[in-house]
Amino acid sequence: MSPNLKDIREAAQRVKPYIHRTPVLTNESLDKQVGAQIFLKCENLQKVGAFKFRGASNAVFSLSDKEAARGVCTHSSGNHAQALALAARLGGIPSYIVMPNNAPLVKKNAVAGYGGQITFCEPTLEARETTLAKVVEKTGATVIHPYNDERVIAGQGTAALELLEEVPDLDVIITPVGGGGLLSGTSIAATELKKGIRVIGGEPEMADDALRSIKEGKIIPSVNPKSLADGLLSSLGTLTFPIIQQRVEQIVTVSEVGIIESMKYVWERAKIIIEPSAAVAIGVLWEKKIDLSGLKVGIILSGGNVDLEKLPWQK
Amino acid sequence: MSPNLKDIREAAQRVKPYIHRTPVLTNESLDKQVGAQIFLKCENLQKVGAFKFRGASNAVFSLSDKEAARGVCTHSSGNHAQALALAARLGGIPSYIVMPNNAPLVKKNAVAGYGGQITFCEPTLEARETTLAKVVEKTGATVIHPYNDERVIAGQGTAALELLEEVPDLDVIITPVGGGGLLSGTSIAATELKKGIRVIGGEPEMADDALRSIKEGKIIPSVNPKSLADGLLSSLGTLTFPIIQQRVEQIVTVSEVGIIESMKYVWERAKIIIEPSAAVAIGVLWEKKIDLSGLKVGIILSGGNVDLEKLPWQK
Repeated sequence: MSPNLKDIREAAQRVKPYIHRTPVLTNESLDKQVGAQIFLKCENLQKVGAFKFRGASNAVFSLSDKEAARGVCTHSSGNHAQALALAARLGGIPSYIVMPNNAPLVKKNAVAGYGGQITFCEPTLEARETTLAKVVEKTGATVIHPYNDERVIAGQGTAALELLEEVPDLDVIITPVGGGGLLSGTSIAATELKKGIRVIGGEPEMADDALRSIKEGKIIPSVNPKSLADGLLSSLGTLTFPIIQQRVEQIVTVSEVGIIESMKYVWERAKIIIEPSAAVAIGVLWEKKIDLSGLKVGIILSGGNVDLEKLPWQK
Repeated sequence: MSPNLKDIREAAQRVKPYIHRTPVLTNESLDKQVGAQIFLKCENLQKVGAFKFRGASNAVFSLSDKEAARGVCTHSSGNHAQALALAARLGGIPSYIVMPNNAPLVKKNAVAGYGGQITFCEPTLEARETTLAKVVEKTGATVIHPYNDERVIAGQGTAALELLEEVPDLDVIITPVGGGGLLSGTSIAATELKKGIRVIGGEPEMADDALRSIKEGKIIPSVNPKSLADGLLSSLGTLTFPIIQQRVEQIVTVSEVGIIESMKYVWERAKIIIEPSAAVAIGVLWEKKIDLSGLKVGIILSGGNVDLEKLPWQK
């Protein structure tokens, strides 16, 4: 069942002791550049460097004592893996993370550093799911899906709740969309809190399955997409798709060049580190494919995990 | 005359409509790494990307109407030039900036972008001062020195005022020291607000004139220093030196390697962009030359202006 505003409010209370209340930044150069008044909700400054920590924390701290004792598990090589491992550690429970054996060393170390117990598998979806099933069989741990999970969606919605508390008169909120956890949680919080607010999803042109899903009225799976925005390669889920269908005004795609330019501009002017996936939300304004001029636009900067040794604007 | 706490409080009121109230961030990884509880006052997120905007704004908005009408001027190729140009623009008055003709294009563009009227000169101190004198003669503009100016020092002290409002029980505050404007303003605010608080200046080993000045009891000019921390190459001023002498516990030097490592760690973990000069304050903890273990340490991150095309940890 789709979470509602009450679920998001409860999630906010539940995760409050664990998360950072991230700042909302403004930047005059950016405003001038895109012709709108931007409010950056900095989830790149969240713990583990991503909004994912909100959803993972809400899931972990929603478990019954009996469930909690057996721990949590997931398969992921991204920010959700780190987020779940840290949330579990803060909850004093075990976490089991299934990772493809070709995951970058820095990601393995990060998960292990937060106390996640890693099981490696072949880098195919089938191997990941089979391995996860074995882990569940052995441990009895609760699977926490990175986005197709009510508790996770409600948790992700808490960022928009905070943003609208600080800037109640936003006209528009933009988030990036991959699996749709952030976008669906945001759309519930925003549309329930403020009648008429517009919620827009930013998606890489090169991984435009959400746009196509909305157009065709059914989930179109993402097939081997390639984009710098590597957090946005998943397909929508059975829970997130209908929420987005109902509450999101439109999905706007952003080119790879637009992603890089937006990312670099934010680094240069706002002095914060955002990952390509977060830049996609800025890209919606940057490329001016839709007219948001003069409006108050909230942007949820989803994360800041990048490899500082190779930046996309460097040869 | 040395500014006092009242001057800093007045400065805070004066600049409030113009500056960002910058966030104070915490980071558990950093705390573990250095063994203290760190509070990062993010002046890298200040307008023009540096605390300098506080001092420049206080100077501009302290002028009489008659003075203001004639504008302000300075010679600088750094953050102060941009800060003064923007403050003047916000005050609706002209600014005249003398810059060496070999200043990087990006800095010239930044100053011009904020409306500063640039006069170029040969890249020597003598040429800068002669040229500035000519500008003053012609325009009647008020010279705003980057640090040896009471209004500037009081303005810089407002960052510590905000930090101590949010975290009143700090044991220590660390700032970088170049000309000493930030360190002296901080030391006045901190020691007046909280008896027994320790104020420490971080300085590059390769530009250790403040350390030597304190040791010898007189201003030892910086002679052709070379450090990545290019905001910290100035000598102390006749106003800043005695304040630092009186109120700062000690100056701690940081190696170039320590500067780079601290800078990269903050980028990676805190997801914010700091310039090498700001990293020097972190470097004091990073290199553990003094024991601050277990203490609550406020750090003023002075700025975030870096060239994203060439980062110091890249070959």
